[in-house]
Amino acid sequence: MTDEVKLYGAAASPTVFRVKIALNMKGIKYENVEEDLANKSADLLKYNPVHKKVPVLVHNGNPIAESLVIVEYIDDVWKGVPILPEDPYERALARFWAKFIDDKCMPAAFGVFGSNGDEQVVAEACEQLQILENELEFKGTKFFGGDDINIVDIAADFLAYWLGTLEEVAGIKFVTKEKFPRITEWGDNFIKCQIVKEILPSREYLLDVFKKRFGKG
Amino acid sequence: MTDEVKLYGAAASPTVFRVKIALNMKGIKYENVEEDLANKSADLLKYNPVHKKVPVLVHNGNPIAESLVIVEYIDDVWKGVPILPEDPYERALARFWAKFIDDKCMPAAFGVFGSNGDEQVVAEACEQLQILENELEFKGTKFFGGDDINIVDIAADFLAYWLGTLEEVAGIKFVTKEKFPRITEWGDNFIKCQIVKEILPSREYLLDVFKKRFGKG
Repeated sequence: MTDEVKLYGAAASPTVFRVKIALNMKGIKYENVEEDLANKSADLLKYNPVHKKVPVLVHNGNPIAESLVIVEYIDDVWKGVPILPEDPYERALARFWAKFIDDKCMPAAFGVFGSNGDEQVVAEACEQLQILENELEFKGTKFFGGDDINIVDIAADFLAYWLGTLEEVAGIKFVTKEKFPRITEWGDNFIKCQIVKEILPSREYLLDVFKKRFGKG
Repeated sequence: MTDEVKLYGAAASPTVFRVKIALNMKGIKYENVEEDLANKSADLLKYNPVHKKVPVLVHNGNPIAESLVIVEYIDDVWKGVPILPEDPYERALARFWAKFIDDKCMPAAFGVFGSNGDEQVVAEACEQLQILENELEFKGTKFFGGDDINIVDIAADFLAYWLGTLEEVAGIKFVTKEKFPRITEWGDNFIKCQIVKEILPSREYLLDVFKKRFGKG
């Protein structure tokens, strides 16, 4: 039986991109269904009635929502390059950091733009990011996954590319090379990674989308 | 080698109780370290510097934080009664619901007491709980896990016992049998479950703790 894999997503979304990286790591062919987030399809609402959000992966008719749940599913189903470590303790640490990034860093960092650069919100975001910076310093490896990316790097994708684009659109710069040298270096390595680079949306495209959503002009 | 397992917790915490259920399901002996949450131990802060919270499981010297991460770790390391389903799609659904309960239902429900029963906060909590109610109705099974409990039931433990005790202390009742018949029935079954019942803290103990923390008198 041939697998039927459909991804309901949006090209500018970093959480959808997490799933795209995972699929690319496993070499899975899939049908990409681009959603208009201002006018979501009946399929998306049917497949993710709880959150009504992208991404949703539909594998042989079975829908799965929540980007990190999907990434774990992809790793459980398809062999090949591992996305989570094999060792149970390393797996637990990877899940811990992916969850931290998803629960704390991403909302805090994106919250900066919603608040229009409010000082307190920026300080809170920097506090969370400093924890990640310290973890990279402590590990001393190229990626959170070591020599290669794993689910933690995938969870952090927004930091490598999306955030800088948003900073440019909003005219608010808080993740600087001076303040976060490890995160900056990690981000440079991350987008140079072949598996990421070959599917990365263009910067022009993201700028365009974010200008429409957040821009001042 | 004998496993050395320590749990840093607090007897009144439903997230710590998640870990206790998982350990009990696997029949793991462990040392229980009771934390004073008003004056956390140096060990707890060393083992969970990011969140500074219970529960923390330390297995042969390796610390793990975040209750659901710990529960998955326990299932990965120790064989015996499974806590997550074997089938990858069923696993993904279980992770989705455990995450939904953890991210949405628990903060919304506990937020009611922080807000002193604010109408809008109660309405939001009921909206999240209604989604769970519908899921139980849709499944038609005794537990989220089917005939036996799994990680989803474990994640929802606060709904079965803690919430009612808090409602009593605060004098705010919003999870009624009339409004949430399935959740109520599920909760009754959950605390009757042998593996849960034999380690459940007494209602008197919880009432006492919550009265000190939230009580009016």
